[in-house]
Amino acid sequence: MSLSWKRLIRFVATDGRVLRGEPILPSPTTDLGFITESDKLQARIIEGDDIYDTTGATRVTEEIVTVRTILGPLAASEVPILRCVGLNYAKHIKEAGRTPPPFPFIFFKPNTTVHDHGKSVAIPKIAQDDQADYEGELCLVIGRDAKSVSQSDALSYVAAYTVGNDISSRKLQRDPALAGRVPQWGFSKGFDTYAPLGPCLVAQSEIADPKALQLKTVVDGEVRQEESVSDLLFDCAYLVSYLSQGTTLQKGSVIMTGTPGGVGAGLSPPKYLVPGTQMEVSISEIGTLRNDVVFD
Amino acid sequence: MSLSWKRLIRFVATDGRVLRGEPILPSPTTDLGFITESDKLQARIIEGDDIYDTTGATRVTEEIVTVRTILGPLAASEVPILRCVGLNYAKHIKEAGRTPPPFPFIFFKPNTTVHDHGKSVAIPKIAQDDQADYEGELCLVIGRDAKSVSQSDALSYVAAYTVGNDISSRKLQRDPALAGRVPQWGFSKGFDTYAPLGPCLVAQSEIADPKALQLKTVVDGEVRQEESVSDLLFDCAYLVSYLSQGTTLQKGSVIMTGTPGGVGAGLSPPKYLVPGTQMEVSISEIGTLRNDVVFD
Repeated sequence: MSLSWKRLIRFVATDGRVLRGEPILPSPTTDLGFITESDKLQARIIEGDDIYDTTGATRVTEEIVTVRTILGPLAASEVPILRCVGLNYAKHIKEAGRTPPPFPFIFFKPNTTVHDHGKSVAIPKIAQDDQADYEGELCLVIGRDAKSVSQSDALSYVAAYTVGNDISSRKLQRDPALAGRVPQWGFSKGFDTYAPLGPCLVAQSEIADPKALQLKTVVDGEVRQEESVSDLLFDCAYLVSYLSQGTTLQKGSVIMTGTPGGVGAGLSPPKYLVPGTQMEVSISEIGTLRNDVVFD
Repeated sequence: MSLSWKRLIRFVATDGRVLRGEPILPSPTTDLGFITESDKLQARIIEGDDIYDTTGATRVTEEIVTVRTILGPLAASEVPILRCVGLNYAKHIKEAGRTPPPFPFIFFKPNTTVHDHGKSVAIPKIAQDDQADYEGELCLVIGRDAKSVSQSDALSYVAAYTVGNDISSRKLQRDPALAGRVPQWGFSKGFDTYAPLGPCLVAQSEIADPKALQLKTVVDGEVRQEESVSDLLFDCAYLVSYLSQGTTLQKGSVIMTGTPGGVGAGLSPPKYLVPGTQMEVSISEIGTLRNDVVFD
């Protein structure tokens, strides 16, 4: 059997309950990232503890409720860990005059970084000085434990796709005075709220070819990133297979596949996140993940 | 109130149950790492779901059982994540001719790396070619969520100390042909079984000064690492405070504080882990974490 849902949102209903549901889209082109309370979006409640269940125990019910606020599709506690890929868009690497890495460059974000769609990313004191940055990314959500799987089997372990924003701290990542001799990819990207995900999960079965997806990041109304997922140096199947070598990728864990050119640090002059910055990361067939910024 | 136990083991009892208990040491100098079934070690069962509880809900009972096998003190699922520090012993950095980093170098290990004392570390195919290595380390276990805590408060968030072995893959970490331009600290150290912990937890209150602890790593009978914890460049309180900036260190998460000189890759010629290698990491007042090696 397959997953019970095709598109999943986690949301606050008008009666105040936090629920999971399959949204009833007013039109096939509705972008869930722009839904507000006044749209009175309806959703069929999903019942069952395990959203990755494929046995029929979890199901989309006929109980329809009205959505007040869409949250992120995953609560932090449901995500064991996030695995992230650096330098994974070929054009971006070429533009930067860099040699493509022979294997994916991997780093981790703890699950305390997971943050809801629509909520403010909170930049902590240690990272407020001209360094906070966005990175729009396609994310994979693992639906069953995967270990040492082949590329041909890899996508069968992916339950769903979503959109992520890998919030980063450029000085803590790269400045030798703060990071030392070796770039720091873990600490600098690991603060609470630094991995907004959303606005929904789209079941893997619904996206015929992830390479055909288009990613776009708009910051304060300016298009900053715009690239086809087909430009990924290491594609989704490769990443799942590679990351699973000798390693259990646990159900519910997330893979952030990397970001294309156009991050704030790469602009001339650079443009970093400040209080009030509005970030929108869109991926075709999924929707737009929207978050603003506050300084904590 | 404080923790209910002073020393905690997780073990298989002679009746087959997996339990937690406070061991009854035959002598104050008993090293739990060398206990075998024939020692008939006894332990008082610890009752309660939350070993970090300080309200009295979790308690050491009067029920005494006999220990068959000591496991690691923490099951993988109980550890949210492991935060690890690179290059943190001053003499080691100096010997290597390196500049001390201005801030701790941080990387993560997923909780799927957590492995029992006494069990074999399994080197996966991808990391079997002259590169698997040990790193003996003092580990801190966080007892309550910590966020942006000061150095003076930091140790009050540490429930216990234990011994860890940060199993590493040197080629995947450093070889440009495998790791690329930037050293890879996450993937190369993140395989299943790559973080043995044990043989016990010692409550923070029982160790007056962690700086006074002595670390020693013996591999196949050869002393390879021997250093005082006082040589840590960034000490325990500093690490907890620094790592908690803008970041929730969750209850149960582990901090591996770094390794001194003497790892296999640094020997001349280098000596890597092979099937059958016996590793023993000892820390005074805690005990000896013992693991051998298999190729998976």
